[in-house]
Amino acid sequence: MSMIPPVNKSLQAAEDVAIHGPFHIEDIYPQIDGGRFPVKRIVGESVEVWADIFRGGHDVTRATLLWRRESDARWQRTPMRHHDNDRWTATFTPDEIGRYQYAIEAWTDAFASWRHGAELKRAAGLDLTLDAREGADLLARAQADGQAAAMIARQRQAFLSSGDIEALLADELAEAMAVSLPAPDLTRTRGFPLVIDRLRARYGAWYEMIPRSQATVPGQHGTFRDCIARLPDIAAMGFDVVYLTPIHPIGRTNRKGRNNAPTAEPGDPGSPYAIGASEGGHDAVHPELGTLDDFRDFVAACRALDMEVALDFAVQCSPDHPWLTQHPDWFRRRPDGSMRYAENPPKKYEDIVNPDFECADVRALWRALRDVVLFWVDQDVRIFRVDNPHTKPFDFWEWLIHEVQARHPDVIFLSEAFTRPKPMKALAKRGFTQSYTYFTWRTAKWEIEDYLRELTRHPERDFYRPNFFTNTPDILPFHLQSGETWLFKARLALAATLSGNYGIYNGFELIEHTPIPGKEEYLDSEKYEIKVRNWDQDGNIKPYIAAINRARRTRPALQQTANLRFLAIDDGNVTAFVKEAADGSDTVVAAIALSPEPHEVWLPLDGFDVAAGDGRRAVAALENLLTQERLPVEWGGVRIRIEPDYDPALLFRCLA
Amino acid sequence: MSMIPPVNKSLQAAEDVAIHGPFHIEDIYPQIDGGRFPVKRIVGESVEVWADIFRGGHDVTRATLLWRRESDARWQRTPMRHHDNDRWTATFTPDEIGRYQYAIEAWTDAFASWRHGAELKRAAGLDLTLDAREGADLLARAQADGQAAAMIARQRQAFLSSGDIEALLADELAEAMAVSLPAPDLTRTRGFPLVIDRLRARYGAWYEMIPRSQATVPGQHGTFRDCIARLPDIAAMGFDVVYLTPIHPIGRTNRKGRNNAPTAEPGDPGSPYAIGASEGGHDAVHPELGTLDDFRDFVAACRALDMEVALDFAVQCSPDHPWLTQHPDWFRRRPDGSMRYAENPPKKYEDIVNPDFECADVRALWRALRDVVLFWVDQDVRIFRVDNPHTKPFDFWEWLIHEVQARHPDVIFLSEAFTRPKPMKALAKRGFTQSYTYFTWRTAKWEIEDYLRELTRHPERDFYRPNFFTNTPDILPFHLQSGETWLFKARLALAATLSGNYGIYNGFELIEHTPIPGKEEYLDSEKYEIKVRNWDQDGNIKPYIAAINRARRTRPALQQTANLRFLAIDDGNVTAFVKEAADGSDTVVAAIALSPEPHEVWLPLDGFDVAAGDGRRAVAALENLLTQERLPVEWGGVRIRIEPDYDPALLFRCLA
Repeated sequence: MSMIPPVNKSLQAAEDVAIHGPFHIEDIYPQIDGGRFPVKRIVGESVEVWADIFRGGHDVTRATLLWRRESDARWQRTPMRHHDNDRWTATFTPDEIGRYQYAIEAWTDAFASWRHGAELKRAAGLDLTLDAREGADLLARAQADGQAAAMIARQRQAFLSSGDIEALLADELAEAMAVSLPAPDLTRTRGFPLVIDRLRARYGAWYEMIPRSQATVPGQHGTFRDCIARLPDIAAMGFDVVYLTPIHPIGRTNRKGRNNAPTAEPGDPGSPYAIGASEGGHDAVHPELGTLDDFRDFVAACRALDMEVALDFAVQCSPDHPWLTQHPDWFRRRPDGSMRYAENPPKKYEDIVNPDFECADVRALWRALRDVVLFWVDQDVRIFRVDNPHTKPFDFWEWLIHEVQARHPDVIFLSEAFTRPKPMKALAKRGFTQSYTYFTWRTAKWEIEDYLRELTRHPERDFYRPNFFTNTPDILPFHLQSGETWLFKARLALAATLSGNYGIYNGFELIEHTPIPGKEEYLDSEKYEIKVRNWDQDGNIKPYIAAINRARRTRPALQQTANLRFLAIDDGNVTAFVKEAADGSDTVVAAIALSPEPHEVWLPLDGFDVAAGDGRRAVAALENLLTQERLPVEWGGVRIRIEPDYDPALLFRCLA
Repeated sequence: MSMIPPVNKSLQAAEDVAIHGPFHIEDIYPQIDGGRFPVKRIVGESVEVWADIFRGGHDVTRATLLWRRESDARWQRTPMRHHDNDRWTATFTPDEIGRYQYAIEAWTDAFASWRHGAELKRAAGLDLTLDAREGADLLARAQADGQAAAMIARQRQAFLSSGDIEALLADELAEAMAVSLPAPDLTRTRGFPLVIDRLRARYGAWYEMIPRSQATVPGQHGTFRDCIARLPDIAAMGFDVVYLTPIHPIGRTNRKGRNNAPTAEPGDPGSPYAIGASEGGHDAVHPELGTLDDFRDFVAACRALDMEVALDFAVQCSPDHPWLTQHPDWFRRRPDGSMRYAENPPKKYEDIVNPDFECADVRALWRALRDVVLFWVDQDVRIFRVDNPHTKPFDFWEWLIHEVQARHPDVIFLSEAFTRPKPMKALAKRGFTQSYTYFTWRTAKWEIEDYLRELTRHPERDFYRPNFFTNTPDILPFHLQSGETWLFKARLALAATLSGNYGIYNGFELIEHTPIPGKEEYLDSEKYEIKVRNWDQDGNIKPYIAAINRARRTRPALQQTANLRFLAIDDGNVTAFVKEAADGSDTVVAAIALSPEPHEVWLPLDGFDVAAGDGRRAVAALENLLTQERLPVEWGGVRIRIEPDYDPALLFRCLA
């Protein structure tokens, strides 16, 4: 249960689907919080539904899985199959992205109940005269159409003329009668919401960069043209998404200087998160980056290289944002009339003011923010990384995402909530397509494995799609500060193979690792200054990144997160796991070193089977994804050697 | 989710308690199926409530646990305490039996949020002028009464005259302000139902007997007077409940003969489950047992010995039941006009007809059955063992139990549903106080331990109260058919110590064990004939039963089922476990042999602590409940020796 108002009418409609009746339809899988929040799946992926279904008595139960697009009036139906112990199942496969509902119906099959008793008595050699008459009476009550009606009438006539009960026990008759009698005890669950996304929701490699740092001349402000020039390099590394920090005009009032200095020096560019200036707000482009047309060219250039653009959506304003004068009521002031700047006591963010989500006309604020997103959708952007969503009302996000996806179901929202675990999960329940995670700080084997087990269990696996970032402009984790190449590779391999979605913030490929001493922050952060790098400098790991991303593109097992099982191996500094594609067609094994010395480990593969022709067979061999070398499975496993200095991660596909 | 109509208005009312708001109040414990069914507790037992509570943002959250009798308009309130990781808890202790509701409220404490920020800034040495004015403004908005209002006004005045923020940071001010500001984001869950029963619901030793077999002269029909004469013997064995099979007039039409013969011989008494004859139906007493006054004397005699009477409530009629003529529409007929007898194809029960729960005037049938129960309640019966409830509509039981307990909350219903696990649990959810179980057939160590783990985990522990029967008139399990005394003792000890409620069917104490060959049924079952036994015959285990029941009476840890943990011991034919009283005041260890040879086993007791004075201490010694012998705990455990021929069960209390 979650005590939050159903902001969308569809939620109430989902409850209204229910038909009360005597059946217990319980322990329904999948569902999030009793149907309050949608389950997430990818288009073409099957949705396997399970439930306990029963009522009192010994009559024969039937059950049907119902499903439809939220906008459809008519249900599609799939008969459910009794598995065991009152547990039933059925599967359907949505073939378009968008919002769906599913529900379960159960009813007593009076004819099957009669037939079951009659057959038992026949087997016991009892007199069936009265039973036969009762069966024929049921046929007379059937409400069927077309061929079924004709067949039912024919069988009844056959019995009436012959008196032979066999005419009433035919299989095809039972099948037709199962759906032809009135079902006074028909019971239906509420509708359970389901969101079907495109594959990019589950699988994508992200490259984060600050566009103004993409120039080639030191000190020069980069432009979208410079960004376009960078794209072949990024594409060659195999990334799918190019994510830009905010591209809007930057405020001048209280602008931050280098290294977050409280005052800027002349020429300091300010933080791109201080959004809005006289040139415009969230729907404007920072003039030094170029024009909106330039931005559109950038989007098109990405697409030409089979990449997508993700924009940063940060609900905050510089003191110079046009909204402060257009909508002064959206912002709070202090008792002396001064602006209430953002703060996280004792920290102050004087270059930022937050809109007040408790202001009188908050719905106008909601709509304005939605329109910002829709504006960028109109510029062909389909992915938004949302900054700090946990500091705004969760029902606002639920509403905004629903509003945008109702028009554009292909839009993806990534929640950048680095906060406590439950609010992070709540935002994912509310509709965020993907979520940031604690991966960035999980380094020990037990930490990594525990965390992945948490993310891939039910219900998390059904609503929380992780996006593992190795680093961000705000986070240079302690473990990367030594700058060891093997570790950068290992962190990349972990992120890229454990999670369907992962990302790096640029500079990672160059092993950038200089912190503000004692902090997990970059020294001379490009959040506050313009940087120009040599993207081909010695020691870069671009070829390694390219190889890992190539492995991801070729292996469907790596294009998802949830189907993951860790292997019990005898080395506390190696994590090894098996991943299987959602449809079972591909299985990958990975073993990744967490310490620099060479490791020899035994991978136990007993009990894993893989797709082979029409069926499944035990794993017979592993094929190294990079070298194509094959290792036969002998005595239920393989022995491997990892040399982290060369490559901390061994990736294999499983062969039958 | 359970798709069943809320038959009681209180269920709708419980939903209506909710106040929608921005808080997530999730993963509430305890609750059954999202609040559809009541949690069960015993009067005086504390109800510990847990929930995840949070909303977006960084403000300070407050939460309160609300609870009340279902009939009360006013809530009682207990502040909830933040435990960790957004999980909150509070406890309340109902002090009367009956139906309750509880709910959770959460809201933002604006003053505490302000205070938290001000304290952080003060610690950082920042200027607090504006913060102090904002705090004082909050005081001006307080809506408090009495002392709190005065204190708030005083502190505000102190600040206004001194300008010193300290006046606004006082602890008692924070406490008063937490509940004095308007809370526009106040969010409340639905009400969660709770049933508070008396101790006998959780703890009781049952003795089942067929009253007509209690005479002392062979062939003579026993009477309630004979039953009264038996009571001292039963009380001496330490039983709490004397359960009688049906006491009503027995039909003559199609009466069954000995050993369930299809036709009775002259003088055969028939099955007491063929209820109703010309002498009356469910509210009449079989004339050969005596009068209603005799029955009332029997009830009083039980009470005088500190025992209670349980009656059998079997919703079925002999063909001679008065209802068949009074309410012919309550029964179905076959196409030839004949009566539809009960059957479980190919088995037929010609001496029984079942009322039709799909008849037109089914509510009149429901009311008549309720009135039967109320009639016996008027005769001072407070416990009903319900025969085969799973073959009747579950919503009927929910309604009936609610109707009876609304008038008499001390009435206990035991569900005799030997069916599939989920319908058995559904009946317990619907309101049955106690339930029969599969214990009767669980013999291997792993079976026993797995089953108990299932019954004592959440949510089962919160709604399913087992009653472990060693045998019944219908079930002489295969393992008892060898008639080994050690095994009868072991089964008795297992039932009596694993479960708070347990029972034997008479004859068990005499090691009766002769089956119909190849079946788990008694030969010459007294269901179809009158038996007269020598209750003191050689080889009886009455002293053993008395000793075990004495242990149960002295040890609160044995008066409940849910707080149970198995010990990992090195013998596949010994099960050992620790039980702790609901309030933690008493801890018992049991070790019970499942095979006849002597066993030496090590009981590991590391990690168990027990009540000691005001706190808890590690277990220092075990005291044998029968011999008072003490075994010190050394090296984290004790070594014990079980001699099953002497006593298959060792029971100890834990000493600190």
